[in-house]
Amino acid sequence: MLPIDEQLAHLLPTVETVVPDDGLLELLGEGRPLRVKLGVDPTAPDVTLGWAVMFDLLRRFQELGHTAVLILGDFTAQVGDPSGKSETRKRLSADEVEGYAQSCLAMLRPLLLEDHLEIRRNSEWLGNLGTAGMLELTSTVTVSRILEREDFQGRLADEQPVSMMELLYPLLQGFDSVAIEADIELGGADQLWNLLVGRDVQRAYGQRPQAAVTAPLLVGTDGVRKMSQSLGNYISVADEPEEMFGKVMSIPDAAMPMWYRLAAFASPEEVRRVAAGLAEDAVDPGAAKRQLGRMVVARYRGEDAAAAAEEHFDRLFKHGEAPEDVAEHTLPGDDPIWLPGLLKEAGLVASSSEGKRLVAAGAVRIEGEPVEAEEVVRRRLAGAVVRVGKRRFVRFID
Amino acid sequence: MLPIDEQLAHLLPTVETVVPDDGLLELLGEGRPLRVKLGVDPTAPDVTLGWAVMFDLLRRFQELGHTAVLILGDFTAQVGDPSGKSETRKRLSADEVEGYAQSCLAMLRPLLLEDHLEIRRNSEWLGNLGTAGMLELTSTVTVSRILEREDFQGRLADEQPVSMMELLYPLLQGFDSVAIEADIELGGADQLWNLLVGRDVQRAYGQRPQAAVTAPLLVGTDGVRKMSQSLGNYISVADEPEEMFGKVMSIPDAAMPMWYRLAAFASPEEVRRVAAGLAEDAVDPGAAKRQLGRMVVARYRGEDAAAAAEEHFDRLFKHGEAPEDVAEHTLPGDDPIWLPGLLKEAGLVASSSEGKRLVAAGAVRIEGEPVEAEEVVRRRLAGAVVRVGKRRFVRFID
Repeated sequence: MLPIDEQLAHLLPTVETVVPDDGLLELLGEGRPLRVKLGVDPTAPDVTLGWAVMFDLLRRFQELGHTAVLILGDFTAQVGDPSGKSETRKRLSADEVEGYAQSCLAMLRPLLLEDHLEIRRNSEWLGNLGTAGMLELTSTVTVSRILEREDFQGRLADEQPVSMMELLYPLLQGFDSVAIEADIELGGADQLWNLLVGRDVQRAYGQRPQAAVTAPLLVGTDGVRKMSQSLGNYISVADEPEEMFGKVMSIPDAAMPMWYRLAAFASPEEVRRVAAGLAEDAVDPGAAKRQLGRMVVARYRGEDAAAAAEEHFDRLFKHGEAPEDVAEHTLPGDDPIWLPGLLKEAGLVASSSEGKRLVAAGAVRIEGEPVEAEEVVRRRLAGAVVRVGKRRFVRFID
Repeated sequence: MLPIDEQLAHLLPTVETVVPDDGLLELLGEGRPLRVKLGVDPTAPDVTLGWAVMFDLLRRFQELGHTAVLILGDFTAQVGDPSGKSETRKRLSADEVEGYAQSCLAMLRPLLLEDHLEIRRNSEWLGNLGTAGMLELTSTVTVSRILEREDFQGRLADEQPVSMMELLYPLLQGFDSVAIEADIELGGADQLWNLLVGRDVQRAYGQRPQAAVTAPLLVGTDGVRKMSQSLGNYISVADEPEEMFGKVMSIPDAAMPMWYRLAAFASPEEVRRVAAGLAEDAVDPGAAKRQLGRMVVARYRGEDAAAAAEEHFDRLFKHGEAPEDVAEHTLPGDDPIWLPGLLKEAGLVASSSEGKRLVAAGAVRIEGEPVEAEEVVRRRLAGAVVRVGKRRFVRFID
C-alpha cells in the first residue's frame, strides 16, 4: 500500500470531517486493507450528483486497495429517515424498495471499481434480528443520546409528530456497522450524527468503533438547498446528456465554484481560478457554466455526448430554434381546439389543468408566438410547432 | 348473566378508575362474556398482597361469567419496566424469568377460579413479531406520547439514563391487548398510563380500544410506599402463617383501614367501623391489628393456621418467650468468642458486618440481656438462647 501521506493526499480533497480527529491517520497506519462502509437507502429511483460525491470518495479508497462495502439499505428504507426534512416520511413497501434498489445499483456500479467491492443488503442481518435482537439493540443506547439529534429536537419542540419507529432508524444503521465490521463509515455531512451513533453501537457489541468520515454536501440546482430527489432540485447520473447539460446551465452563478469542485471534480487550482475569476468579473459566467456543463456531462457520458449536449442547448436557447427531431402529433377534428386538452393528449403536459396554468402564464407558444386564450382555431395549429416551457416541443399534423 | 347493576355492585368495591368513564357500563351492557386481561411480569419469585388486590378484582369478573385472560409477561419481563422506581432495572435472563413464572403461577392459581380462565405467555406472540413486526408496532405511537409518562420525564429531566429499550415496553404490553383481543385490561393504579397506551395500539391495529380499569394500590408494611418486592416491604401470599401474621402486626396503625379493605377484603361497613373507631380512640389498635392479622392469614391459609400464627406471635412478643423449637448450634472452641462471626456462622445474620451493626444497635440478646461488646466470654454463651432482632433465635451448645 502507498505511504500514509500519499494515501491522505488522494483522499482528502472531498473529505469534510473525520471523527475522531486522528482516526483516519491511525487506521491507515495499520497498513492493511480497511473496510470502508457506505450505506444508501434506496427510497427513490435515481442516483443524484449529490450521492456521487460520496461515491467518488469511496472509489478513492478502492483505488488505494481498501475494500468498499456498499450497503443497500433495503430494510432501513422501509423505516424512513426524516433527515431534517421535518416530516414523517412515507413508508415504502418491500416491492417499491426492491425496484429502487435495482435501479440505483445499475447507476452506482459504474461509479465504483469492480475490485475491492462488496455489495450487501441490510435485510440480510436486520431481517434476522428478531424481537429479542431488536430489544438487545435498543438496550445499547439511551433515549437522551437519540433525542440529541437536531431534527428530532426541533420537531418535538414544534409539536410535530415523531414516530417511535424513527428513533430506531439510527440504531439499525449502527447495527449495519457491527454486521460488516466497518473500520470507517462514509456519509454526507448531514449524516455525521448517525455515523457517531454507529460508533456507540459497535462499542456496545464489543467492536472497535469505526472512524466517521463525511463528504461535503452539494447544493441542488436551486443553489440553496441540499441536492435531493424529494426536493426535485437534482441531476441524476442517469439523466440524458441534454437534460444534464440544461440543468447545469440553470444553476445560479454563485453555486459554480462548489459545483466545479463537487460535481465536476475539477482540481483545487481550477476551482480557485474560477472562484477568483467570478469574484473579480474576470471570467464570463456564461462561458464558465458551459465549461462546467461539458465537464459534468463528459464525466458520466463521455466527451462526444458533452459536445452534442452543448450543441442541442445552443439550438434551443441561444438561437431559439426547435430541435431537429421534433415529435409529431395528429390534430383532432374539433374547431376551435381546446389547447390544454390537446397538450395533455400530445404528452406535453401531465394534466389539462397544468396546460391551463401554462397558457395563462404565457409559457405556450405557437411558432414562437405566445398563446393568449385556451381556445385556438384549428388552422393556426395545423403544421405548426408548439413549444411548452423551455424544452418541450411538438409539431401538429393535420 | 346478572343484570348490569348487580354486576357493577359486585365489581366496584376494589375499582379505582375506569377509562373511558362509561367503558365498563357499555361493555357489560353487551351481555356477553368479556375478555378481561391482567398482565403480570414474573420479575421476582413471589406474589404479594399488592398483586392479590388485582387478582381479587379479576376473580370477581370470573364469578360473573367473564373470561380472565392472565398474561404472564415472560417476554416483557426481560425488557424491564422501571415503573417509577427511577432506575434502569436489571435485565433478567429467560431462565430466571421462567423460574419466577413457575413460582408465581403456583401462587396465583389458587386466587382464581379454574373456569373462565385463560393463561397465556406473551413470548407466544412477541417472540414471533420479528424485526419488521417491531417496526410496525413502533410506527403506531409517537415519541411525544411515550415521553408523556411521568417516570420517563422525571428521569430525563434529572439526567438519569433511560434506555431506548424501556421506551418499547409500553408498546409490547399494548400489543398483548391486540394479541388476546382484550375488552378490558386491569392493572394497578400506577399502570393506568400503560393501559391507555394499550388502547392506542389496539386502535392502530383496527381493534376497538379496551376499557382500562385500575385497582387501588396497597401500601407496604412500612405504611408509606407501594407494596413491592424490590422495596422489601411486602407480604407474599405464600409466606408461612407465622411470618404473615408477624408482618401484619408490624404495620403502622394508620395503614389499618386500607389494609382491612385491600388486604383482608373486609366489608365496606367493617372498614368504616374500624376507621372511625381508630379515629375516635374507641377501638384498641392492638386488638384491631390482631383481628386484621387473623383475617389475612385465614384468607390464604385457613382459620386454624390463623389461630396458630396468633399463638406463636403471643409466645414470641407478648410473653417474651423463645419458641418451642429453637434451632441449636455448636459453639466453636474460641474464648472469648467474636459474636458477629458466630451469628453469621449460625445463620442468624447474612454477614458479620450485619452482626456488628445489630450488636451496636442493642438488637442482640443473650437470655434476654442485650449484648454490649462484640467479644463475649465462652461460658456466657454455652447453653444460652441468643435472640437477634425480634424473631431470630438460636441455642448455643457447648
